[in-house]
Amino acid sequence: MNESEFIGALRSLPIHDAARGLGDDCAILSIGSETLVITHDAMAQGIHWLPEQDLADVAWKLLAANLSDLAAKGARPEGVLLSYQLAGGDADPRFLDGLDAALRAFEVPLLGGDTIAATGPQTISLTAIGLASHVPVPSRSGARPGDSVFVAGTIGDAYAGFELLKKARANSGSLSDAHDYLRRRFTRPSPMLADGERLAPIVSAMMDVSDGLLLDAARLADASGVTLAIDSDAVPFSSQFREWSADRSDRERAMRWGDDYALLFTAAPADPIAARFARIGKVMPRGENALLIDGVSPGPDEPLGYTHG
Amino acid sequence: MNESEFIGALRSLPIHDAARGLGDDCAILSIGSETLVITHDAMAQGIHWLPEQDLADVAWKLLAANLSDLAAKGARPEGVLLSYQLAGGDADPRFLDGLDAALRAFEVPLLGGDTIAATGPQTISLTAIGLASHVPVPSRSGARPGDSVFVAGTIGDAYAGFELLKKARANSGSLSDAHDYLRRRFTRPSPMLADGERLAPIVSAMMDVSDGLLLDAARLADASGVTLAIDSDAVPFSSQFREWSADRSDRERAMRWGDDYALLFTAAPADPIAARFARIGKVMPRGENALLIDGVSPGPDEPLGYTHG
Repeated sequence: MNESEFIGALRSLPIHDAARGLGDDCAILSIGSETLVITHDAMAQGIHWLPEQDLADVAWKLLAANLSDLAAKGARPEGVLLSYQLAGGDADPRFLDGLDAALRAFEVPLLGGDTIAATGPQTISLTAIGLASHVPVPSRSGARPGDSVFVAGTIGDAYAGFELLKKARANSGSLSDAHDYLRRRFTRPSPMLADGERLAPIVSAMMDVSDGLLLDAARLADASGVTLAIDSDAVPFSSQFREWSADRSDRERAMRWGDDYALLFTAAPADPIAARFARIGKVMPRGENALLIDGVSPGPDEPLGYTHG
Repeated sequence: MNESEFIGALRSLPIHDAARGLGDDCAILSIGSETLVITHDAMAQGIHWLPEQDLADVAWKLLAANLSDLAAKGARPEGVLLSYQLAGGDADPRFLDGLDAALRAFEVPLLGGDTIAATGPQTISLTAIGLASHVPVPSRSGARPGDSVFVAGTIGDAYAGFELLKKARANSGSLSDAHDYLRRRFTRPSPMLADGERLAPIVSAMMDVSDGLLLDAARLADASGVTLAIDSDAVPFSSQFREWSADRSDRERAMRWGDDYALLFTAAPADPIAARFARIGKVMPRGENALLIDGVSPGPDEPLGYTHG
């Protein structure tokens, strides 16, 4: 039973209404007059990080990835629960250093969790709990023809940072300031919590970009039953990324790479809050394909992003 | 850095008040006029279950263990988030069968979660979210001298069930009805949710018994700053366990074994609700040791229960 069969089978289990049919990144749970937003993200050694990586960066990214899901719901983080494995009975203090730094940077406290002994490659996960700042909480499924498509944040910095790190390791070289910015965007991403809260009242649909802009855009299109027409020249890239990128092919790869922790949303074209962000396309009635990229449907086998795990 | 050093170091991170200093099984989070009770428990292949075990039982026990933490808080389960690994990209349908059965048996729906690919032995975890039925929510730290010590449920069934399963496997034998009861108490435990809710308003301290009655009693004593004097003849055993157990040494091992998912609590000796349960001892001012077992302090190296992971 592979991953998509497993997730399909999960849908036949008793599912809480708050889970929105397991089609979203977060559960949206009404508690009295408040609305909780709850998400869980796991990372595994060998899949999501390599043994030689600094576990402080892994801890940071695990927290950032969970909080990015809350950001896409306009939620204010209340706290997180940590699920930690002592691989071979031994914990890495660097993990704690990175988690401490990230909890302080994003002003989120620890609520609890569990620590277990385990053998083999390490898996670490977090449950993040937030409070909705606006109800109804944005979903992936609200995009309507006539809306525009926007991105808050920039695309590709993490991709560039990863490529630079690989090269620096190979050459034992150091990185320039611009390159250091890109590296940090890969190792220490920031969830867009303030923008998420600002956008929640005005978006028709929103999600975070974590698996590649085009793949996540296709998911939003599928959930909403629409086609998104994307103008790739309008995709926002940082000046550091533009400086680094050799040509158009780097930008095209960046749109399929992931780890951006940007926000993708749809809203009325004339909305003044949305207008502060990059308008990258428009929502159209559902066509044959979830996406039109510069007017062309991507081929059925064309990879749109990161699809493993 | 070993597990206790790791947990000690976690305490220097930003901690939510709801985490009660990470000294409890659950976070207790006020949301508007409601109080949420949140817990997270993980299990690892090779540590918490063996490769030859039926994953349906593993799923059931994972849910039961999490809900047992909620039961000890008198909380009503609202839902759970599943963190699942596809070991080698492959999911076992038996896990889903067991999870489905347990969710239906305990009337708890799935709220969401995450599924990732991973290599090596599998780790599976759950986050359970409940609503407090009574405020203040019981803690481990409220036992006061003069209270009595009680157990709701029975001790040792899982231990006997485990021993019977080992033997049946060795002999390819089948189990009698009484033995089948004990086996199921090991493979398919039930959290005492209804009793937890009934007891929450009258207990001074409560926790679930999952790592061995004596070890958990010592933890409750330490958290409360008292000594618990336990009368081992008063510990409640099922008739099936009594029939199975050969002698006193089985009962002594059972008190140190775990997986009981009973409730241990302290309350006023004359409380009429508490009086329906087995009174196993009394709370005394803190002496040299957390426990007195039949009037004797356990030796410093005497194992009280299951302490790994």
